[in-house]
Amino acid sequence: MNPSPNISHSITVRLEVPPGGTAVGHLTTTVESAGGIVTALDVAASRSDALRIDLTIAAGDTAHADRIVDALRDIPDVDVKKVSDRTFLMHLGGVIETASKHPLRNRDDLSMVYTPGVARICQAIAADREDARRLTVKRNSVAVVSDGSAVLGLGNIGPHAALPVMEGKAALFKTFGAIDAWPLCLDTQDVDAIVETVAAVAPGFAGINLEDISAPRCFEIEKRLRERLDIPVFHDDQHGTAIVVLAALRNALRVVEKSLDEVRVVLVGAGAAGTAILRLLLGAGLRNVVVCDIDGVVSTARGDTDPTLKWIGENTNPEGLSGTLRDALPGADVFIGVSAPGLIGAADVAKMADGAVVFALANPDPEIDPSLAREHATVVATGRSDYPNQINNVLAFPGIFRGLLDAHAHDIDVPVLIAAAEAIAACVEDEELNADYIVPSVFHPEVHHRVAESVERVAREQLRESSS
Amino acid sequence: MNPSPNISHSITVRLEVPPGGTAVGHLTTTVESAGGIVTALDVAASRSDALRIDLTIAAGDTAHADRIVDALRDIPDVDVKKVSDRTFLMHLGGVIETASKHPLRNRDDLSMVYTPGVARICQAIAADREDARRLTVKRNSVAVVSDGSAVLGLGNIGPHAALPVMEGKAALFKTFGAIDAWPLCLDTQDVDAIVETVAAVAPGFAGINLEDISAPRCFEIEKRLRERLDIPVFHDDQHGTAIVVLAALRNALRVVEKSLDEVRVVLVGAGAAGTAILRLLLGAGLRNVVVCDIDGVVSTARGDTDPTLKWIGENTNPEGLSGTLRDALPGADVFIGVSAPGLIGAADVAKMADGAVVFALANPDPEIDPSLAREHATVVATGRSDYPNQINNVLAFPGIFRGLLDAHAHDIDVPVLIAAAEAIAACVEDEELNADYIVPSVFHPEVHHRVAESVERVAREQLRESSS
Repeated sequence: MNPSPNISHSITVRLEVPPGGTAVGHLTTTVESAGGIVTALDVAASRSDALRIDLTIAAGDTAHADRIVDALRDIPDVDVKKVSDRTFLMHLGGVIETASKHPLRNRDDLSMVYTPGVARICQAIAADREDARRLTVKRNSVAVVSDGSAVLGLGNIGPHAALPVMEGKAALFKTFGAIDAWPLCLDTQDVDAIVETVAAVAPGFAGINLEDISAPRCFEIEKRLRERLDIPVFHDDQHGTAIVVLAALRNALRVVEKSLDEVRVVLVGAGAAGTAILRLLLGAGLRNVVVCDIDGVVSTARGDTDPTLKWIGENTNPEGLSGTLRDALPGADVFIGVSAPGLIGAADVAKMADGAVVFALANPDPEIDPSLAREHATVVATGRSDYPNQINNVLAFPGIFRGLLDAHAHDIDVPVLIAAAEAIAACVEDEELNADYIVPSVFHPEVHHRVAESVERVAREQLRESSS
Repeated sequence: MNPSPNISHSITVRLEVPPGGTAVGHLTTTVESAGGIVTALDVAASRSDALRIDLTIAAGDTAHADRIVDALRDIPDVDVKKVSDRTFLMHLGGVIETASKHPLRNRDDLSMVYTPGVARICQAIAADREDARRLTVKRNSVAVVSDGSAVLGLGNIGPHAALPVMEGKAALFKTFGAIDAWPLCLDTQDVDAIVETVAAVAPGFAGINLEDISAPRCFEIEKRLRERLDIPVFHDDQHGTAIVVLAALRNALRVVEKSLDEVRVVLVGAGAAGTAILRLLLGAGLRNVVVCDIDGVVSTARGDTDPTLKWIGENTNPEGLSGTLRDALPGADVFIGVSAPGLIGAADVAKMADGAVVFALANPDPEIDPSLAREHATVVATGRSDYPNQINNVLAFPGIFRGLLDAHAHDIDVPVLIAAAEAIAACVEDEELNADYIVPSVFHPEVHHRVAESVERVAREQLRESSS
């Protein structure tokens, strides 16, 4: 069976057909018979001997696209000239660029933007370093830093292969947060070297966004950079995910009419995302949570020596459960998975409490097929864009950094993360809220702005408290 | 006496005057009496009780601007509201920004620029790392790196205060070279740490432009980075200056009808710029050059232990001169100074050979007042924008990096630098060439393009040679 057609496997096929024949009519039906969808048909040139046609087609994956092109080749009189992959076309030469804010047309422009005028700007900053936040791009810039060790679901593919993700992220920062972000993909996976490198480049940035760095290295890198730098350091895979999970959980509980301090949550996955989700949910008022890792339920009884697991044991599982995930799930109100595909089945969900909430966030394949989960759970969310309720970090990071930058924040703490989650949750009005709409779209016209406002307000309060 | 008005000390004064009175007429004359120049007068608002006027004024320096404003305040009925410094206004929030090359309007855009589509781009690069030069911003990006240790003529002002220069440079890279450059100002002045940091961030860039790093640290940093990285590393203060000096010298010698392999050059300054100029001139065919530093003429007889001075002694001064600069200058064809203000006088220039060429490049105050030098020398050049023949690095670096990037160059060597200099020199046609026009303007419509073309051609030849 062909996988379902999607835009990220979209191709444009340039082909030529004789004019006046029947070939054109066959193009769309051929694509459809092969399981693809024609999303555009443009006649690029019409000559006496041939029509040149650009046919844009959504396919299911690369192999499927090849099969569709083969089917087109088989149509009599059709001459396939060139096949372009639209995603690759968009990434040719990268997806971001720089711009000069001022035209440099003549000597006068040059002498203000550059020498000799720029010397006075330098002198002002030399006299008061905080002026760099006013008179340079530092005011608005974030470094998107990765070592390429845990990129998307692709694993340790290295800094060069990580670049397209960090660039894409920079494009999102600009589009949704009006932030000037630049990708820094590091040619080292040594914790000390990463910390030293980021600390060294920090003067030019007002924030650091760590991305796709594998656990447990990401914890130490973040911790040491936070201690060392006077600008906020945010590991998006941890805190971005945690914020959107908290926002989604707030609204899921509105749907099932339960409150965060009453529910029992089973959280599967004690890696970067799982740990961050746990800490944020506890910070937001959750009291009863059981964490499972590959060895089952984490508890003090298990005698873990890893500091993170030890901390989890001491701060979760108030009922002292033990055993496997399957032992913990019956009666639970909420399942949150940031672990591996297919961990649980419909029967497990059926044993949860009434009004069960299932967040199956493993990517690209969730802990349970969301349609199966929906048979027994009231609210289901995933990380996927082809189901309702996508838990998508893009909802969080542009607004969070916008708010932090506007507040001239020096760090980022739990109250800021909670404020961001509340702002996202509040974008879903009471009359809009339902089991299939617990988080706003990333294209919601207000969400990034509202996150920024909330974050800025709380960050300013924290600055005032820390200075008083 | 007031210093002469210039655009880099330009202010805009917002003031209010009663309508119908004589105050408006007094504004321009008052500014002129105070030694300033009114470059614009805009009526921003006209109300029944007052005219609001924005008066833009070129002053000589900050103190002069203050005196002009005081004079305006003294006009009866004039109410000065606000004074803005135009250079500071231009630098508010920085002079560069990022942009997303594609609009992100909907889910489809997002799934190609970012997840899930971006994963296929990552996989392509993971399979072939060279694809990063095709499918990411690496194709077109340069890091502008400084540690803030030798910024313009301001000395060691640190990384924050260096930012405006590196940003301005990035704006020039974009405007003249269509290159995406990003400033990286480093919070360390340790050679090892700088090398490690730049090597760590290198995967995302196709070139490194080192800037305003003090000698002798800059030599070692550049050398070690060149050995380590597979992208070109260029220290603009050295090689940019050397290229434009060679270009200017080529044309100066065209004016005086001498050839590079015949003339005797006296070069003053054995720092970063001086050493680079020396190496490039020798590479281009100069045979007779005498270098002077603070201790006088460098020669093997002096017994220097510093490796650079030792190398200079062994490779210059074929006539075995000794003594001071004043001893070396008589009979010389060319003086090149990259040293300190006021080192020589008109009498020294008078003792040079007929058709003398004087490049007095110390900034902002040259080794000799250019008007004095011109009394005896045929061609005079400086680093200043208010005299003819400005030796300006902006002529070189945008085109050089454009050419290197287009050639996918892995390094940069003397033939490339010479090609750049020849291209700059060739922009001055025979019929344009004269003693006051030996280098083209940085706004010459062809210069950056021609430099890029020459550099790309030579860099490709070198790549072919090194791979054959």
